Amino acid sequence: MENTLPQAVIDEVAEIATRARVAGRVLATLGTQEKDALLCTMADHLVAASAQIVEANQRDLERGRAEGMSVTLQDRLRLDHQRIVQIADALREVAGLPDPVGAVVRGSTLPNGLQLRQIRVPMGVVGMVYEARPNVTVDAAGLAVKSGNAVILRGGSAAADSNVAIVEVLRGALRRRQLPPDAVQTIDALGRDGARALMRARGLVDLLVPRGGAGLIQTVVREAVVPVIETGVGNCHVYVDASADPTQATAIVLNAKTHRPSVCNAAETLLVHADAAPGFLPEALRQLADAGVTIHGDQATQELAPAGINIVPATTEDWATEYLSLDFAVRVVDSLGEAIEHIQTYSSGHTEAICTSDLAAAQDFTAMIDSAAVIVNASTRFTDGGEFGLGAEIGISTQKLHARGPMGLGELTTTKWVVWGSGQIRQ
Amino acid sequence: MENTLPQAVIDEVAEIATRARVAGRVLATLGTQEKDALLCTMADHLVAASAQIVEANQRDLERGRAEGMSVTLQDRLRLDHQRIVQIADALREVAGLPDPVGAVVRGSTLPNGLQLRQIRVPMGVVGMVYEARPNVTVDAAGLAVKSGNAVILRGGSAAADSNVAIVEVLRGALRRRQLPPDAVQTIDALGRDGARALMRARGLVDLLVPRGGAGLIQTVVREAVVPVIETGVGNCHVYVDASADPTQATAIVLNAKTHRPSVCNAAETLLVHADAAPGFLPEALRQLADAGVTIHGDQATQELAPAGINIVPATTEDWATEYLSLDFAVRVVDSLGEAIEHIQTYSSGHTEAICTSDLAAAQDFTAMIDSAAVIVNASTRFTDGGEFGLGAEIGISTQKLHARGPMGLGELTTTKWVVWGSGQIRQ
Repeated sequence: MENTLPQAVIDEVAEIATRARVAGRVLATLGTQEKDALLCTMADHLVAASAQIVEANQRDLERGRAEGMSVTLQDRLRLDHQRIVQIADALREVAGLPDPVGAVVRGSTLPNGLQLRQIRVPMGVVGMVYEARPNVTVDAAGLAVKSGNAVILRGGSAAADSNVAIVEVLRGALRRRQLPPDAVQTIDALGRDGARALMRARGLVDLLVPRGGAGLIQTVVREAVVPVIETGVGNCHVYVDASADPTQATAIVLNAKTHRPSVCNAAETLLVHADAAPGFLPEALRQLADAGVTIHGDQATQELAPAGINIVPATTEDWATEYLSLDFAVRVVDSLGEAIEHIQTYSSGHTEAICTSDLAAAQDFTAMIDSAAVIVNASTRFTDGGEFGLGAEIGISTQKLHARGPMGLGELTTTKWVVWGSGQIRQ
Repeated sequence: MENTLPQAVIDEVAEIATRARVAGRVLATLGTQEKDALLCTMADHLVAASAQIVEANQRDLERGRAEGMSVTLQDRLRLDHQRIVQIADALREVAGLPDPVGAVVRGSTLPNGLQLRQIRVPMGVVGMVYEARPNVTVDAAGLAVKSGNAVILRGGSAAADSNVAIVEVLRGALRRRQLPPDAVQTIDALGRDGARALMRARGLVDLLVPRGGAGLIQTVVREAVVPVIETGVGNCHVYVDASADPTQATAIVLNAKTHRPSVCNAAETLLVHADAAPGFLPEALRQLADAGVTIHGDQATQELAPAGINIVPATTEDWATEYLSLDFAVRVVDSLGEAIEHIQTYSSGHTEAICTSDLAAAQDFTAMIDSAAVIVNASTRFTDGGEFGLGAEIGISTQKLHARGPMGLGELTTTKWVVWGSGQIRQ
């Protein structure tokens, strides 16, 4: 499975990462005002260069069409002047966010007089591996700069020309402000081997964040020897308790499934308490079908479906699938405990919601479910850095180490202990 | 290099980890009083069983002696009644520490009425891989229990009998309190293959902490596909600035090198500003030699050494070595910048100290040095969970992800977002 990495690529990525480390040291000591000014310069330069960027983007789109790229992917890839203005505005919003660097997390004066402070500091060099969405190039660079990090970008090859154009503009903004352009670099030109060398650059890359589909994330988690934060796979559940208000539950289920089915916080499985099922499921299934949803149901669901609504028999595989489409697995359970057990078995640990009017059920569900976000009586779609008020988000962590749930600027930092003394030695 | 793991071992570790996960769910929902009572029962049982534990320990010691174990290692391995009382007291101290679980890290009410709380929760299943110090078996189990986690222990084979006896006592205490004994398990009986299977049990182990020498830690970091926190390798530096008070600096250097040379926060390299060297080094070298320290010095150090003090010429390898012994690399530098560059090149990112009376030098050093702890005018020996007032410590992280520096109970937890709503859907 694993081909050997050419030494030339390993060496080139090591050189790029070393330049990033040197540039990162400059960014790490910049004040907030300087970083915010840099972000605004980047935004100005992007808008000023929008014609060139759109031209590069057109080349990517033409290549994509020639290679049979789907219309959905073409939509994600497409840039126009208006879209570039929006992307630039997002950078200005990042400039407006609080700076995590320098915050004192905790501190004390020890009995021996040592003054102890745990201070938030940048990671150093952050790698981002993502797919063909050129806006991520700008978002990632912006969040890295604001948190005092250098960034090494590896975008999808389908957006290669767009990314080269964008990175050149961002590096121009760094130069304009007398800052090292190597704080923002791309390794797109090195192809897949470059991406794999980045994943293996232990000691040179402080944090690698993959952002994209399950395949990309699994590849990075499996191959990387640098520290990685796993993001975004969401096999999310909504559980409708016996005590749920059927109207409210239906609205939540519809929203969780259909509001934006292709994203990680969309619901993939509906669990319904057997006592609620007769009064809830027939109407809910009708509304889901009207919204174009294909139901993959267990036996009880099939029996409760109104005439004319087709239910695909669900298999074990359905419980484990993140559809990212208008498909929905539906199962009737006998108890809250059975719902919790189902979720413990199949969830990817992203977001689960309960619809209930029973306090004990809500408390048990939030205590027992071990996911990044556990939601009572609201849509799973709220698990999002913007919605949570964290500002811009670099991804949603589904792992437990370092960061869990939406990752904002703070999650791109680490801490160090700074200790001031006056000659203390250990007794 | 890599031999294949027997499927039987993989399966057995998976079963052990699954039992740990189930037991961990019980521990995760225990209140603080219940956990503290359990820790005290564990302590009582250890003292009550001290005769059996000492007997098991004698078998380990006899085997060790027969296999030519060094006296130092025998000392680390040895248990007697008094030592077991101390280990039990450490458990009672853990019972007295604040419980990190349930703490609300942050929270807010969103404009749409959603009530958001980020809550500290246990990791789930924590693995510990360590060497032949049976006290670590108790410490690790105690910290895991207090933070609501199940623990899987893999101690050194040299302490196998002691560990079996201790784990049996701890599991008895769990049973006595009607709690699942599988919250504390050992895989020592599965040997090296068991340890490797643990490192590869992705999805079953939430966090693996290696604790021991550089070889053990590197093996774990290289082989593990479960989340790991790298601990403890300390190539620590003391830099004596031009402005340093020679008497204070000498006391700090002596303490950092000789107080306990075998531990990770002991100093391994001394850097001295050229302007301070003539007034500081001859006397410091004399005192170090008197304390039994072997100096590995650069040319300038050799020239400044008093007659009769032998200096081993230092090589590049010396700058990179964590001696863990009474050896000390010494280099004269021309500037603070050269000292910082030396540290950036060779440090393992654990602890670095500066001796200075110049405010700007102290500020530059603490800003530019990217280590877990940066200390002004005090010994490197203070980087320690107990000294920092964090209570018991499971290790000292030298990585940037999740935890950095001394790891206490809080570092054995993660967070989850709990969101309470009243029917909110995403617009």
